[in-house]
Amino acid sequence: MTLTKDPRPPFKQLLAFAHELADGAGAAILPHFRRRIAVDNKADDGGYDPVTIADRAAERRIAKAIAQRYPDHGLVGEEYGTVNPGARWRWIVDPIDGTRAFVMGSPLWGTLIGLMDADAPVLGMMDQPFTGERFWSDAKTSHWRGRDGKARRIRTRPCPQIADMVLTTTHPSLLATSADRTAFRRLEAKARMTRFGGDCYAYCLLAAGFVDCVVESGLKPYDIVALIPIIERAGGRITSWDGGPATSGGRIVACGDAEVHAKVVEVLGG
Amino acid sequence: MTLTKDPRPPFKQLLAFAHELADGAGAAILPHFRRRIAVDNKADDGGYDPVTIADRAAERRIAKAIAQRYPDHGLVGEEYGTVNPGARWRWIVDPIDGTRAFVMGSPLWGTLIGLMDADAPVLGMMDQPFTGERFWSDAKTSHWRGRDGKARRIRTRPCPQIADMVLTTTHPSLLATSADRTAFRRLEAKARMTRFGGDCYAYCLLAAGFVDCVVESGLKPYDIVALIPIIERAGGRITSWDGGPATSGGRIVACGDAEVHAKVVEVLGG
Repeated sequence: MTLTKDPRPPFKQLLAFAHELADGAGAAILPHFRRRIAVDNKADDGGYDPVTIADRAAERRIAKAIAQRYPDHGLVGEEYGTVNPGARWRWIVDPIDGTRAFVMGSPLWGTLIGLMDADAPVLGMMDQPFTGERFWSDAKTSHWRGRDGKARRIRTRPCPQIADMVLTTTHPSLLATSADRTAFRRLEAKARMTRFGGDCYAYCLLAAGFVDCVVESGLKPYDIVALIPIIERAGGRITSWDGGPATSGGRIVACGDAEVHAKVVEVLGG
Repeated sequence: MTLTKDPRPPFKQLLAFAHELADGAGAAILPHFRRRIAVDNKADDGGYDPVTIADRAAERRIAKAIAQRYPDHGLVGEEYGTVNPGARWRWIVDPIDGTRAFVMGSPLWGTLIGLMDADAPVLGMMDQPFTGERFWSDAKTSHWRGRDGKARRIRTRPCPQIADMVLTTTHPSLLATSADRTAFRRLEAKARMTRFGGDCYAYCLLAAGFVDCVVESGLKPYDIVALIPIIERAGGRITSWDGGPATSGGRIVACGDAEVHAKVVEVLGG
């Protein structure tokens, strides 16, 4: 009998494991959300920084779980760097995507858990433990569940025209260069409505058919990898601004409608 | 026996009634939140516009409840205008404050219910039925409750310096004039961090001590009256940009710290 080297674990098992990771991360993070810092008494609280502490606690928990269950898998995280960088299966994790939202008490942040098979994102999950929401992809479709625990399939909505788009970006100043900001303003002028804020939450609203376009720049792989399968398997299209793979981060454009995606890429290109 | 004309109902009774109004509004609105519209099939859905339908359904419900319980009270709503405009006790209501957030599936909207005694806001409530949160003031203090139903007292946080402020506005383009936008940018340049989006939710995060300053313009009374007691009884200060009462709407500045409020008013004044 010959064993296949580096076999892919059954997808269902990987997905169940991702749910476990998200449960653990949420449990580690939530006690620090909306926790007040004594701003007037900094000496006494020893520099307590809820978002950093929560981020690290969740990432440690995720790293430990992966090392126990899939010791050969890789891990790319925000806080502790990379484990098994040459592994075929790599988990790409951001415990708190949307730290600014977190800091100001807004629930528009989330825990991102993605799995890459070599260069291809095969599984994605976004968990929002405060609202009790989770978005994820299985092998072919994307899903949302709320506090009632019932999974519902999500799909992007058709929106072939830029003029009909609900467009979002997290914050105009987070667009990495002045050229990026100019390109965004060009697009904004053509869209029906623009709204700021959102981070990973905005991409998930796109996957669920409530937002038509998300444009950002300066992203890291862990900001985006988990979102790719959620968007693609809901029927959307997500690439770099020049139409290449989104997996490396950088300048990202996601659309619910593939037809409008091509038009948006053209506008962003100048 | 002489009856006092137009007596003030016991405060506890009014507050319990406000909770009833919020419960009813939430029940009317929630079925329309995150409901998909068949964008590609407009003829068939008869122009279904979830936010307008939800807004009207909730306001009708509120108006009916007030007419039954307090027929002499006034009502100022967004959708159906004014009832008993000369009444001493007037309910100032916005069933969905943050319609743009609502339309794009974001939970950063809320139902606003305020009560005025002549010119003074005496009670305020903000309900977010999707996250299960409610913020309100009683006669002296402000409170938040989440899904566990347990009320917790909220307080603004100290933040005497503009340079330390977390500043928000709903969207820079919603600032009513270019002079307003210039004034906002002047303030933004001095603050630690700016974040857009939020509507009523941002004011409540200020009352709870996570945001230090909210600046907006072009507001209607029903956008702001309910928030005034929540902010003031949490220790904050909310006025018009020139330091006058916030009850008429228009240009509004709220700060968690009264000391920084004076400095912000000065910066906005130019």
